[in-house]
Amino acid sequence: MSDIIEGRNPVVEALRSGRPISKILLAKNIQRHSIIAEIIHLAQINAIPVEYVERTFIERQSETGSNQGIIALTAAREYAELDELLAIPESRKETPFFIILDGVEDPHNLGAILRTAEASGVHGVIIREKRAVGLTPAVEKASAGAVEYVSVARVTNVSQTIETLKRENIWVVGIDQAGTTNYTQIDYKPATAIVVGGEGKGLSDLVKTHCDFLASIPMKGKISSLNASVAAAVVMYEVVRQRFVV
Amino acid sequence: MSDIIEGRNPVVEALRSGRPISKILLAKNIQRHSIIAEIIHLAQINAIPVEYVERTFIERQSETGSNQGIIALTAAREYAELDELLAIPESRKETPFFIILDGVEDPHNLGAILRTAEASGVHGVIIREKRAVGLTPAVEKASAGAVEYVSVARVTNVSQTIETLKRENIWVVGIDQAGTTNYTQIDYKPATAIVVGGEGKGLSDLVKTHCDFLASIPMKGKISSLNASVAAAVVMYEVVRQRFVV
Repeated sequence: MSDIIEGRNPVVEALRSGRPISKILLAKNIQRHSIIAEIIHLAQINAIPVEYVERTFIERQSETGSNQGIIALTAAREYAELDELLAIPESRKETPFFIILDGVEDPHNLGAILRTAEASGVHGVIIREKRAVGLTPAVEKASAGAVEYVSVARVTNVSQTIETLKRENIWVVGIDQAGTTNYTQIDYKPATAIVVGGEGKGLSDLVKTHCDFLASIPMKGKISSLNASVAAAVVMYEVVRQRFVV
Repeated sequence: MSDIIEGRNPVVEALRSGRPISKILLAKNIQRHSIIAEIIHLAQINAIPVEYVERTFIERQSETGSNQGIIALTAAREYAELDELLAIPESRKETPFFIILDGVEDPHNLGAILRTAEASGVHGVIIREKRAVGLTPAVEKASAGAVEYVSVARVTNVSQTIETLKRENIWVVGIDQAGTTNYTQIDYKPATAIVVGGEGKGLSDLVKTHCDFLASIPMKGKISSLNASVAAAVVMYEVVRQRFVV
């Protein structure tokens, strides 16, 4: 992935989380804003150079087009290994809660899913290496900074990964309209991984056969599917409800 | 709003729902697809002219850039009146379920909210006239066709609208991080309207004072808010869970 973080909130989240940053570029005519003040303060504390440049220079570097006159140059983000992901719940003494994405291609969707995953206490997100979007700057931006806090592992084979998780005593729940069980009827209190498909495609047949359960989200109208990030969010917060509220 | 619908699914949904369409334009080199066949069939039945044109012509008309070689020209979409919206639940003999958006500005978010609203059985969505996105082509596209089936009313004053709903014995629940009640602890079985704020801003102070309840979605991580369309979806499906599953 690229090594540019764009926009006030993503840059300040990167700084707060201690992510290695080599340089921060600010447009000379940047608007005064409390977050910019915090960014400059954090950069000083961490001895990160801050350069004031022409806005056109920022625009040329920008990949998302919504940089708000500020970009940070970083080391490339590293993906976590699956083993590292699987060790996180134990290190936090929590019951495992993972999300597996079977081919999400839209950067906005992956960003939104990472944001919701972070907010709902997911321990890690597993994405596909092929025919899927990775941790690009657009994803980082759409995640509203969440990408700094959620571990993401990339795997070549989702079905094999599901088998690995099952050997770790994690229940694997596929969300698909073919599922005959309502997603709220599944018990998410034990160790759980939720599998969500890509935009408008649902899960692949092979992945479906590897899941312990297939559950569907009820559709009360005429449209046949939800946005992938919405479907993932609805299930993630059902897990939160069952584990922390009921 | 503009009078162009772009892409296979939005065009076929417009036709299926009987929306007035003046003409359909297809790229001469359009890829064969079962949905295109259905579109041509529906156009014939409804005596809607179909024209084959150069793809460059389609591209010039396109506002979203993702037209898949097909656009439909329509009459401008009309917003529903608030009274019409309020009459829908009775006509369906259902308990009222409305969504009020207090300033959603991102077309992707509004589109995703309309899609989830349609899927979760919401009777109507109320949006703000000012500092908010309306039913633009980008919203239509992002809604995956749902805009054809969900009634949308535009109001000048959200607080006054809330008072109108309260007089109709509808409970108004504001979703805001200031809420001390967990959103799952609210009883959504009676007539309910959910109020969701714009991107990263939450509800305005005035709107908060008019709500019957303020409820929050738990945030387990370091990020302080969810995407507006995700927050709305999580609450909409809690309503579905309480009304249809529990």
